[in-house]
Parts: sequence; C-alpha cells; structure tokens
Amino acid sequence: MDTNIFGSGGGVWFMMGACLVFFMQCGFAMVETGFTRAKNAGNIIMKNLMDFCIGTVMFALIGYSLLVGQDAVAGFIGVPQTLFTMGTAELPNFFFNLMFCATAATIVSGAMAERTRFSAYCVYSALISLFVYPIEAGWVWGGGWLAQHGFIDFAGSVVIHMVGGISALIGAMFLGPRIGKYTRDENGKVTKVNAIPGHSITLGALGVFVLWFGWYGFNGAAASSVEELALISINTTIAPAVATVTCMLFTWVLNKKPDVSMCLNASLAGLVAITAPCASVDPWAAAIIGILAGFLVVGACNLVDQVFHIDDPVGAIAVHGFNGVLGGVCAGLFANPAYGYGAGLFFAGVAGDAPMIFGWEMLGIVCVMAWTAVLMTGVFAAIKYLPKVMHLVKSGNGLRALPEHEIAGLDISEHGLASAYADFLPSAPVYGEEGKAADLTGVVPATIGPAAGEKYTKVTIICNQDKFTTLKDTMAEIGVQGMTVTPVMGCGVQKGHTAQYRGVTAPVNLMPKVQVDIVVSKVDPGLVVAAAQKALNTNKVGDGKIFVSSVEDVMRVRTGEKGVAALDNEVK
Amino acid sequence: MDTNIFGSGGGVWFMMGACLVFFMQCGFAMVETGFTRAKNAGNIIMKNLMDFCIGTVMFALIGYSLLVGQDAVAGFIGVPQTLFTMGTAELPNFFFNLMFCATAATIVSGAMAERTRFSAYCVYSALISLFVYPIEAGWVWGGGWLAQHGFIDFAGSVVIHMVGGISALIGAMFLGPRIGKYTRDENGKVTKVNAIPGHSITLGALGVFVLWFGWYGFNGAAASSVEELALISINTTIAPAVATVTCMLFTWVLNKKPDVSMCLNASLAGLVAITAPCASVDPWAAAIIGILAGFLVVGACNLVDQVFHIDDPVGAIAVHGFNGVLGGVCAGLFANPAYGYGAGLFFAGVAGDAPMIFGWEMLGIVCVMAWTAVLMTGVFAAIKYLPKVMHLVKSGNGLRALPEHEIAGLDISEHGLASAYADFLPSAPVYGEEGKAADLTGVVPATIGPAAGEKYTKVTIICNQDKFTTLKDTMAEIGVQGMTVTPVMGCGVQKGHTAQYRGVTAPVNLMPKVQVDIVVSKVDPGLVVAAAQKALNTNKVGDGKIFVSSVEDVMRVRTGEKGVAALDNEVK
Amino acid sequence: MDTNIFGSGGGVWFMMGACLVFFMQCGFAMVETGFTRAKNAGNIIMKNLMDFCIGTVMFALIGYSLLVGQDAVAGFIGVPQTLFTMGTAELPNFFFNLMFCATAATIVSGAMAERTRFSAYCVYSALISLFVYPIEAGWVWGGGWLAQHGFIDFAGSVVIHMVGGISALIGAMFLGPRIGKYTRDENGKVTKVNAIPGHSITLGALGVFVLWFGWYGFNGAAASSVEELALISINTTIAPAVATVTCMLFTWVLNKKPDVSMCLNASLAGLVAITAPCASVDPWAAAIIGILAGFLVVGACNLVDQVFHIDDPVGAIAVHGFNGVLGGVCAGLFANPAYGYGAGLFFAGVAGDAPMIFGWEMLGIVCVMAWTAVLMTGVFAAIKYLPKVMHLVKSGNGLRALPEHEIAGLDISEHGLASAYADFLPSAPVYGEEGKAADLTGVVPATIGPAAGEKYTKVTIICNQDKFTTLKDTMAEIGVQGMTVTPVMGCGVQKGHTAQYRGVTAPVNLMPKVQVDIVVSKVDPGLVVAAAQKALNTNKVGDGKIFVSSVEDVMRVRTGEKGVAALDNEVK
Repeated sequence: MDTNIFGSGGGVWFMMGACLVFFMQCGFAMVETGFTRAKNAGNIIMKNLMDFCIGTVMFALIGYSLLVGQDAVAGFIGVPQTLFTMGTAELPNFFFNLMFCATAATIVSGAMAERTRFSAYCVYSALISLFVYPIEAGWVWGGGWLAQHGFIDFAGSVVIHMVGGISALIGAMFLGPRIGKYTRDENGKVTKVNAIPGHSITLGALGVFVLWFGWYGFNGAAASSVEELALISINTTIAPAVATVTCMLFTWVLNKKPDVSMCLNASLAGLVAITAPCASVDPWAAAIIGILAGFLVVGACNLVDQVFHIDDPVGAIAVHGFNGVLGGVCAGLFANPAYGYGAGLFFAGVAGDAPMIFGWEMLGIVCVMAWTAVLMTGVFAAIKYLPKVMHLVKSGNGLRALPEHEIAGLDISEHGLASAYADFLPSAPVYGEEGKAADLTGVVPATIGPAAGEKYTKVTIICNQDKFTTLKDTMAEIGVQGMTVTPVMGCGVQKGHTAQYRGVTAPVNLMPKVQVDIVVSKVDPGLVVAAAQKALNTNKVGDGKIFVSSVEDVMRVRTGEKGVAALDNEVK
Repeated sequence: MDTNIFGSGGGVWFMMGACLVFFMQCGFAMVETGFTRAKNAGNIIMKNLMDFCIGTVMFALIGYSLLVGQDAVAGFIGVPQTLFTMGTAELPNFFFNLMFCATAATIVSGAMAERTRFSAYCVYSALISLFVYPIEAGWVWGGGWLAQHGFIDFAGSVVIHMVGGISALIGAMFLGPRIGKYTRDENGKVTKVNAIPGHSITLGALGVFVLWFGWYGFNGAAASSVEELALISINTTIAPAVATVTCMLFTWVLNKKPDVSMCLNASLAGLVAITAPCASVDPWAAAIIGILAGFLVVGACNLVDQVFHIDDPVGAIAVHGFNGVLGGVCAGLFANPAYGYGAGLFFAGVAGDAPMIFGWEMLGIVCVMAWTAVLMTGVFAAIKYLPKVMHLVKSGNGLRALPEHEIAGLDISEHGLASAYADFLPSAPVYGEEGKAADLTGVVPATIGPAAGEKYTKVTIICNQDKFTTLKDTMAEIGVQGMTVTPVMGCGVQKGHTAQYRGVTAPVNLMPKVQVDIVVSKVDPGLVVAAAQKALNTNKVGDGKIFVSSVEDVMRVRTGEKGVAALDNEVK
Repeated sequence: MDTNIFGSGGGVWFMMGACLVFFMQCGFAMVETGFTRAKNAGNIIMKNLMDFCIGTVMFALIGYSLLVGQDAVAGFIGVPQTLFTMGTAELPNFFFNLMFCATAATIVSGAMAERTRFSAYCVYSALISLFVYPIEAGWVWGGGWLAQHGFIDFAGSVVIHMVGGISALIGAMFLGPRIGKYTRDENGKVTKVNAIPGHSITLGALGVFVLWFGWYGFNGAAASSVEELALISINTTIAPAVATVTCMLFTWVLNKKPDVSMCLNASLAGLVAITAPCASVDPWAAAIIGILAGFLVVGACNLVDQVFHIDDPVGAIAVHGFNGVLGGVCAGLFANPAYGYGAGLFFAGVAGDAPMIFGWEMLGIVCVMAWTAVLMTGVFAAIKYLPKVMHLVKSGNGLRALPEHEIAGLDISEHGLASAYADFLPSAPVYGEEGKAADLTGVVPATIGPAAGEKYTKVTIICNQDKFTTLKDTMAEIGVQGMTVTPVMGCGVQKGHTAQYRGVTAPVNLMPKVQVDIVVSKVDPGLVVAAAQKALNTNKVGDGKIFVSSVEDVMRVRTGEKGVAALDNEVK
C-alpha cells in the first residue's frame, strides 16, 4: 500500500476521490432540478447548495467526532468535540467523511421537493449531518460495533443511501403529496395517479452522468491498492450498465416504450446497489446485482407512487432506499472471501475460515433502518408540529409550504425569485392533474352583449419587446388598468437579420415581438391607439402595428361583474 | 515507471484517466442534445446513455477478448471469451478499453440524430462494441499486426474517432437527411440547404468543455511517465486552442461573423487531430496540427452538408471522421523520434535508427477505414432492409423512424415522453426549411360570413395556470369540443409578488396566466361564460377575466367544412 | 515529497490539478451565461471559449517566459521567449501556469457581458494573457521580487482573482451600464436601479458547482505533500461553506428571504478569499475568512451596483475583486507559522523566528493593484478610443457594442446566431427597467373605424408547427405581407399521443400548434382562407382550423397610417 496514494492517512487518490464525491453534489442538484418543475428550480438549487454548506458546519462542529471516536466508547457513539480542536492528522479523513455525510443529507431533498418550507429543510438537513448520519456511520466506518463484526458496506449502500432513502420516505409521508399529484374521490380515496413531469430531462441526464462519474470516487476512494481500485471500478460500471439495460427492456415490455427518466433512475439504482459490495464481489455478481436493481427500481417506483401514493418527485425512495437495502443484502449474498471482506451466503461452502457475514449484514441493515426511522420520525414530527405550538408559523405547519406558495412556486414565495428562467414564459401544463369539472348546479347562462350605452373595444398592439415597459407605463398614464401580454413572432417584408448556423446562411423572417391586448370602454380607444403610437414610434421599420376590434362583452371572474364594471380594476 | 500511477497494470492515474474518459459520455450527450431539436432531446439522451450501457455488456461478453487476445492469433483477432472468465489481472485494462470502446460507439449517434429508430440504434451500437471496434482496435492496441509494425495512434484518432466518423457517414447516408434539411426541385436536385438550429447552444458548449476536460484523460491515461504526461497534456491543449482560433478567424473572414457552433466544433476537431500524435510530436507541431484542424473542420462541414448533402446534425463526420484521418496522417508526418515512437516523414533526415512510420500510418488508416466501411455497410444494410423482409416493421424500413414520428419528435413517438421540457412551450421554427408555397391552381376564394341562422362567438378566458385543467374539464362537461391555449402574462393593478434579484427589489407586475380561446355556436356562449366563471372563481384578486366577441366564420382545414359543422369535432 | 505525485517538476497530482483548473473554464462559462440574458448566451459562450484559446496562444508565444524568467532579471520581468524554444522540462509548469492565466482572463468577461464588442473582447483578453498577468504573477510565482520577500498568495487570491476583479471594474467603468440597468432623471442622476435577471439560474448553479469542484485543483495542485493537500482541501471546503451560510442568513435578515443568486456568489466569494491563505491558515481561520467573505460579497455587490452604479451582470467585481483583496489581507493576518509560510499579524507573538509577512502582504496587494489598474486603464482606453481615431469603427466606440446591437442581442449581431435556444420563444421581460411613460403632450385620440369603403378582416389560422413555412410561403404568394405568429396549444377531441412519465400513463390532450393571425383588406379574406386550407390540408385529424373575424381599424406605428395604407407593407 502506497500511502502517498491510498489510504485514510491521506493518499492523493483518497483525496481526489473525495473531490469526485463533492462533485456528486452537482449531480444531485441537476437531477433534482431537472426532474421537478421550473417554478421551483431556484429553490431546489438553493437546497442542494445549502445542505452541503450547513452540513459542513454541523459536521465540523460535532458530527465528525461522533463518527470517528466510536472505538473509544463501546462502539455506539464517539466523544463529541469540534474539528478545530482535533489534530491536523484528522484532516484527510474529515474531508473524505464530510463528502459522504453531505451525500446522505442531499438525497432527502429530492423526495421532498416542490412543497417543503425552506426553513424546515435547513433544520432537518442540519440535524442529519449533526448526529443522525454520524452515529450510524460510526457503527460501520468509525470502528463501531458493526465494524467489529465484519459488516460489509464498503462505500455506503446502507449507511448512506438507505439512510437517505428512509429519511426521504418518512419526510415524504409527513409532507403529503404535491397538489395535483393524486386525484381523490369524496372519501379521500385516490382515483387517479397523475404525472407531474420534470422541466428538463436534459438537466436530469446531466446530473446522472455527473453522479456516475463521481461514483468512481464514491466507491473507489477508499481502495487500498490498485488491484482493489480496478475491481471496484469495474463493478461500479457493470452494475449500473446492466441495471439500465434491464430497466430499458423491462419498461419496453411493460409500457410498450423504453422509458427515459426511469432508465436514468436505473443507472443510479445500479450504482446504489453496488456501493456496499463493490470491493467484495466478482464482476459476474455485479452483473446480477445490476439485473436485480434494474427490476427493483421500476417496481419500487410503482409501489411507492401507485400503491402507497407517496409522492416522491425524483424517485429517491426507490433509488436510494430500496436499492440501498438491496446493496446491503447482496454484499451478504455475493461476497467472495477471496477479496478479504468475509464470505457471503453463496460462498458458504467455499469460504474456508473467512467469517460468514450474511447474518451480520441483515442485522446491520435492520438496526441502521430502525435507528434512522426512529430518529427521523422524531425530527420530522418536531419540525412539523413544534413551530405551530410555538406560534412560529402563522398558518399551516412547520414542514410544508402553504398551498398558495406551492401553487405559485417556491422560487418566488421562498426566495423572491420571479423565475429561474427569466427570459422564458412557463407554459400551461401539458399534463398533470386532470381537474375535476366544476359543479355546475344552478349555473344559468350569462346574458351576452353590451350593457345599454356601453361599448367595449379591444386594442391589440404588436411591438418590439424592448418598448414594452414604456408602453405599459404610458397606458397606465391614460388610465388603462389591465392588459394581456403574449410573446409572439412578427413576420413582415421588412428584412430581419441574417443568421448563420454551421455555414448555412438564412434570413430571419420571424422577429420576436410582444402582443399587448387591451380592452377598454371608459378610456377612449382612440386615445389608447394614439398614445401607444406615440410611445412606440421610433421611425424605424418594425415599430409594429395596432389593431382595433369590437368586443361584445367582458366579465370579471372574481365578482361576476360585467361590462364597464369588469374593466374597472379597483379591488372592491 | 511507477506502476502505482502509470501503466496498464493498473496505476491510479491510468484508472483516473479512464474515469475522465467515462465523463466524456456526458460531454457527448450534451453536445448532441444541444445541437439538435428540443423534441428529440429525451431520445438523444437515451441513446447516449444506452450506447454506454449496452456497449458495456457487449464488450464484457466478447468484445474485450477480441481486442486484447490478438497477439496470440496472427494479429488479426483475439480468442473470444467473456470478461467473467478472464483473470482479475485483466480488470484495469478492461476498464480502460471499455471507456474507449464506448466513445467509438457514441460518436455515431450525433450524425444519425433526430430520425433513427431507437431499436435500430440499440442494435448497431451493440454490434460496434461487440466486434467492429474491438477487432480493429486490437490491430493497434491489442498487440495486433499494426502494433507490430509501429503504427502510431496513441489515443485513437484513427482507431476510435475515424472509425466513429466513418460509421457516422455510412449511417447518415443509409438514413437520408432529416425532413426539411434540403429543399429539392421536382427532379430531386437540392435547390437549397436549410439550417436546422440546435435547441441549446449552451448545452452544446457545456458538452464541449466536458469533452475537452475528459480528453486530458483520453489522451493522457496511457502515459508511462510524468514527462510523457506533460507533453501529452500540452499538445492536447495547444492543438484545440489553435484550431479554435483558426476557425474563429476563418469563419469571420468567410461569413463576416465568427461562428459560435463551428468554433465549438473546431475545439473538438483539434482534440481529435492531436489524439493520435499527442505523445510523439513537439508542441510546435501540435500548433500546426491545430491550424490544419481549424480549417479542415469548416471545409469538411461544408463539403458534407452543402456539396454531398449528407445531413449530419452535429458535425460528427467532419469532426471525428475527417480530423481522425488528419490525426493519423500528422502522426506519420510530425512524429519526433526523440519521443520513442518512431520518426515521421518530416524527421526522415534526423531519425537515426528510428523506424520511419509514415508508410505504415497510411496503410493503417486505409485498412482500418476499409474494415469499418465494409462492416458498417453490412450492419446498416442489414438493419435497414432485414426487418422489412422479416416483417418486423409495419412500414418504412428498419433504420429510419416514420415521417410522422420524425415530425412529432422521437421523444413522444419512441419513448412516450411528451416533452423533455414540460414547462416550456416549443415555439414555431425561427428558421428551417423554407416551405414551398402550395399549388393554388383551382383554388377559389371562400365565401366568408355566417351560414343562415348561425352565429359564432369567441369566448376568451384569461385565468391562472393552475385552474386550467378544471376549466378544461368543465368546458367538456358543457359540450365544448375544442380550444386554443396560449401562455400569456397578465398585468393588472392587483399586486403581484415582490421579487428580489441580487439585492435589487422590484414588483412583479406581469403574472403568468393562460389564455383559453373557445369558439362556439351550438353551445350557448352565455353558458360558456357562466360555467367558466364558476370553474375559475376563487374569490381572489387575479382570478381572471372573460371576453366575448363575434366571429364571422370558421373552417375546419381537413374537410373544408364551415360554420357549425366546422365547430363540431366528431371525426367523420 | 514524492515527485511522481507532487511538485512543479510535474507530478501526476500537479497535472491532474491543472486539468481541474481547466474545467473551471466550463464553470465560468456556465455561471456567466446563466446570470445573463438568453439573447447573449452564444456570445458569452464564445467569449469564454475564445479567452482560453487566444490566451493559450499568447501565453505560449511570450507570456509564460515573462512569468517564469523573473529570477534572472531583478524580479520584475522575465526574458521573453516562446514556449517552443524552451526545453521540454518546462512543459508541466507551463501547463499548470496556463490554466491559472486563463482564469485571470476569463473573470473579466462576466462584468463586461451583454454590451462589449466581440473584437474588443478578443483584444483585451489577448493582452491580459500576453503581459498583464504574466508579469505580476511572476513577481509572486516566478521567483520575482514579492516571492523573494515571502509574499503569501498560495493559489492566487491577489495574483489572479483581484487582478481579474480590478480589470473587470475598470472595464465595466469604461463600458458603462447595460441599457435599462439604471433609470436616470433629466440630469443623469440615477433614480432607480433595475434588476436584469439572468436567464438560467440552474446553469449558473451548475457553473458554481463546477467551479467549486475545480477549485480543489486550483488551490491544491501546488501542494507539496499529502498533509498540505489535506489542509488545503479542508480550508477550500470550510471557507465557501461558511461564506454561503453567512450570506444566506444575512440576505434572509436583510431582504426577508434568502437570496439564491447571492448565495451562489457567496460560495465563490469564500473560495476566492481562501485561495491565498489556503495552505497557511488553520481550519478555524478558514471559517472566519468564510464569515467575512459572506458579508463582504453582499456588501460589495450593493456598493458597486447601488452606490457606484457600475453594472456588473454576474458580480465579478464583488466576488473576485473585493474577495481577492480579502484573501490577501487574511493571509497576512491568519498565517500560522507552523505551516512554513511565515507568520500573520495574529501570530506575531508566537511566530518564533518565522518572518512576519503582514507588511509585505499589504505592499504586494497595493503594488499588484496599481500595476493592474494602470495597465488595464491603458488597455481599455486604447481599445475604446483608438479604433475611432483610426476609423476602424463606423459609429460608437471600439469597446462597446452599438445600442441597436445590444437591444437585439449580441448573438445575432456579433455572431449571426438567431437564438441560442432556437426552439423556445423568448418572453417579454418579467422585470427590468421600468420604462418612463411617453410624453403625451399634444396627442389627440385617433378616430377609430374603417375608412370609407374599406373593410378589414382578421383570419386566424391554427395549424401544425411543421406546416408553418408552407403556409407562410403560400400567403406570400397571394400577397399577404404581414402576420403574427404565436406558439399555442390546441386541445380537441382528436386523440393526441399517449405519454408516459415514470410509469404513469396519460393522454396528451394539448398538442403544440401555431396560431397565425393575418389582417387583410385589399387581399380577399376568402382567398386567404381558401389558400390556407389548401396549404394545410393533409386529410388528417388535427390539421387545424381557420377563424375569420372583423377588425375595426388598423394603424402602422412608424407612420401613423391607418386602414389599407397600414396593411400595405412596402417601406416608404
């Protein structure tokens, strides 16, 4: 063993591997953002950024000492102290463990995306890094009681991914589903499961590639020789590759078409499942583990979503929770004693004097599961109910964002960010919850037509985007109180720019414009036209056009007022 | 040589370099997605993911053994066996070679993007990894006959990139161009080459940066000393940098403006061209190779697109095919014998006893080219025609997606993915094929105006996006059968949220809304108004408005029916 | 020290670290693109690509020799020569230094984004790499006079980031703010600071994660032992994490909501501030430096934007300039002599015989600052004014893009790129400059209504997107001269595709369509209807509908012409 390269004493590969694990934060951020909606993109980014940053502070303050000091105290919990009072010899190991701790924390955010209060997120993320993760990780990696019995979890299928997945499950249950995810009948029974598609499959895919890349560090950093590193790297390639192929074929058969986002999940599932056994199983076992993971992720996603109706926007529970367990179990089944980590059940006959570890594997999984379930139930319950008791929140509970904030999006409600994509208009939902038709009992057709002596006129203005704010302020000046703005493209004989793309030249006939529709009655439409012309005219070709047409009637939805009353925007 | 760091025995840098090559899969996915259209983004992601995963399975099953076992069997092909039956000593080398194999496979997808059946893609991608690539790579890297004669292709300009590029060329020829790429006259002669711009130049650029980063591993992983690694890294920097500058100046002169996407291609072209000679030429030669690559990529793109009319959406043929050849040739020209890989033509006089390798370079290029051309022609021909013969496809051929699928996009047709960007509405094409005007012979002006006793009324509803599905279902309830939905922004006196951006606070006056236009005749417009109001009213400011106006006539395009008949949506 | 791994002689980690620094180019490109507008995305990508490529050429030609040869010539400047004439022993060090040089150059582009001529960018970027950076970097890293006095700037807070930040400041001042950034009264006094939000916070976040990842190489590459690397890695984690947490809390208190984009800036600020002292301070000092950086970045952003009214779209001045200075100062305050780089002010009493470096820190910062300020003022002044004097530019100055180009976006004006996001329509600005209402003095209401004998008719066509160009050309054929095109979604009883998302199947009822509005008078609307039907009819369900309605009047903005004259598109 070359200590300049390998080993927790601080070899260069050990450090480099930890850097790769850091980069997985980027992967998680992209996956979770891509698989959720645009209106929450800034919030999800912020959560992913902050769980690492808050987690670093917590882990340095106490967490790390709880993890590594376990050998001193009966294998259950280390002696608390801060990083700053420990010697510099701890630094490489702290760096390495911090990155893994941050991974455990960040897994949760995906399952709880799009509806969690940001403050609640900060609190539970801090607590995971402060003591939930460190203590159980210390059992396995800090010389704790499971380590002492040969429990295999080389890089954390159980210690990190299962823990993250269970926390995610409990969090998602405490939260409840996103508005619109499940259609229910009057008894609250789910009658329909709706898809809420993510806003960028490409970002999600980017995240998966980054995660896979980082996983070579995640699984490989703790290798103690080049031979071991090679085995780990191969297994970390074969398992996800086989899982993805399996999932592709399975969804192809199941749904008639191979499912893109599920295959991306399957790659991660294969990676999670090989994480515990990566250094102790043969490549053929990695292939089998991949097949299992490929089926499991599809089944678990369906189970969670369609049977249990737990809303997990990114599939974190299936990917990390279920496959984390799978990883621990497979380590107990397939561990080849030749690699020095004990013998799995399938090697019982040929294990020689290697310890049989299947039983300890099972016990460890159960204990870590129980630990996490109990603690995280307490944490989420406290976050949900305590703030209400303490009058820290005005309405709702401490965990979940208010419905109006959820509908508007957490970007604007939690962070004041109007949009993470300011130059693009979000479209109406292509799919999502099928609404229930309104109850039309007692509805009578409205009388259509102008009230006596009233006339309503629509002025439609097509103009350049950069003149819009001037137009808006000019309209306000003459008393126009509402308008509808639509991004459009104008096409005229006036020459646009000439565009080039990869050597091909083409005229751009369609220029981005904005269409402003204004309906007026009390305000003279002739004044609207004249004022708009004044505001927009720059004497250049392409300044736009104004169209005037007649409107028969207008109604304000909130009050049911019609005609001039509906056009008068004073809130009553 | 420090075997802990360098060398195919499994040094850490060797493994780390292979991880960087894996990360190039991410780069390819981003480049290919960014340079194609949004409606195919999920499909391209899926192809890039699956070629790696399927390739891993194929390479482990047989491919690798064909590559490495060549020294045993006359230098042409290795003895087939699976990875799982080979010893663990093979693992590092398998890991390394797998990553390169996957690169060869993934290059093809770019040139064949946006019109290839997904099943066809899976098949040819599997075959490339199964035997096409392994056998010829074994000639050079597996101790095969070219290796035995000193053929220089350090990291695979020829073995990987040229092979990928030629496969791409043949594939694109078998496929034919995308609908709309070339406008043809009645004789089928191309009269106009159209640009079909990619949907995200930023994703494309991200991919290029990732590829360049990964290329330091691609070219450097096999270095056998720090000195060699340094030379490789410098050459791998200078060639693409000079190529990009050359391309910028060249396109600036050629088209009056420096071309962004072509410069991104030029970086890749420089990287491809330096891949073969990276360890055997001086930095000044790398600069010259960069200049050549910068010109070549522009010329080759134009040649392929504008002269041969072969449609290559991302420029893979020019970047990998042409510049792969350039790399092999330049290794034969510029190899400095001082670096120990033989002497290039320009060092003929000073080579001492170093073998002159130019002739073998040329022969090797031709042989690998012929091998690839013959095999891939067979592969693509089989994929195209066999399924038809075997009645596996109902219409079209086995290779190309059906026209209606291509127009709708492969995301929805191949994967059931409504959109990779669910929250954003795709816009009409800014440029693309200039349509040919319809033949208007015999067209007579339609009579405009309502049929006797008919009246058509348009109800325009502006409402919140989250109420849309309720509105839609309510309208269905009262018999409304069609609507047009437009994402708009509403601006009224009601206060929007307050947004902050980098410390600047501003009111958000424009709120995202949805405009629903419904034209009715048989259905009472008064009922539409009343029902919509019922469905939308939440008693909150911002619930929306309803406008009613008169329509003179309506026609259904498919049947030419007018008036009430056109509004009745029953398919006849 | 293991020279195979560490050290400027070319250890593997040294080279790998430099590769990570290269990857930071990707991070800068994504941050700068994400935090600016979509219409300039291609231009910003191009600038980030070219500064690396041009910089590589310049640094190889002369820059590097000016940096490293300083010990030979009194510590101020090295003897100029090209890389190609230096020995191969220089290669690792060149590779390493090139990556840092490129970082200094690329920082500037963010502050000058969205309004700088591309040619000007190429020139100043070349000059920074040619001599501005190399000379001052040589003072510290090339054995120059500051190096000889123990000046601590381990990885370049001062030498790179402060230099980049000051260049950015001077550049932004020479340029002036973007159109719309500051609203001014008649005396030119700023009355309102407007936000111009970036077009993709997710891309910006991606960039920050990539930069942070790369920073482990940036700060760590020059480590000389595993112990030092561990200290550097820890400090490079703690400082940005603490800075981000500080910023989150600070903006939460300040603005009532935690600011996403500012927190992303804070991560970078913490990284910049720890860059100089990363190898010489204890982790607790890194935490304090993080706190300072977290406050400083917020304060500096406000100062630059709201007090000095200097427009820095991405916050480069605050992040790199202010925090670069902070890093240099903190190295002088907190350096622990135990790490071997001298003693900071706070260790004055315990320094033993370690040299006190605070004074040299201050002097070095001032000298590098002065050097940069003087040179860059000269560079930017020359670029701004010389081309005008030499008649190389027709209007405006040499530095700033013309206003019409800035409004249209630099993508189309500088590169002929119609849009970096061709499939998506940019929306009207959600926020941005509040326009001033037009002066309505003398405006009289227009007379509304058709001129005698004229009738104006609007034909609204809803059709498939792929038929749009055919429709457009057909309309041109019959004399239609203008149209408004809106991307919409059509909803009818005809079945759309069935979509799947993560195992949930749903019908897609809303299909992307395009709405084309045409207003005609001289052209027979009946002909428009008939021709459109001919052009669009494919006999398939979903071919679309045509609606006809009456328009009361129409006005051309540019000329104020009404009625038929307004519809006639000939430019007069």
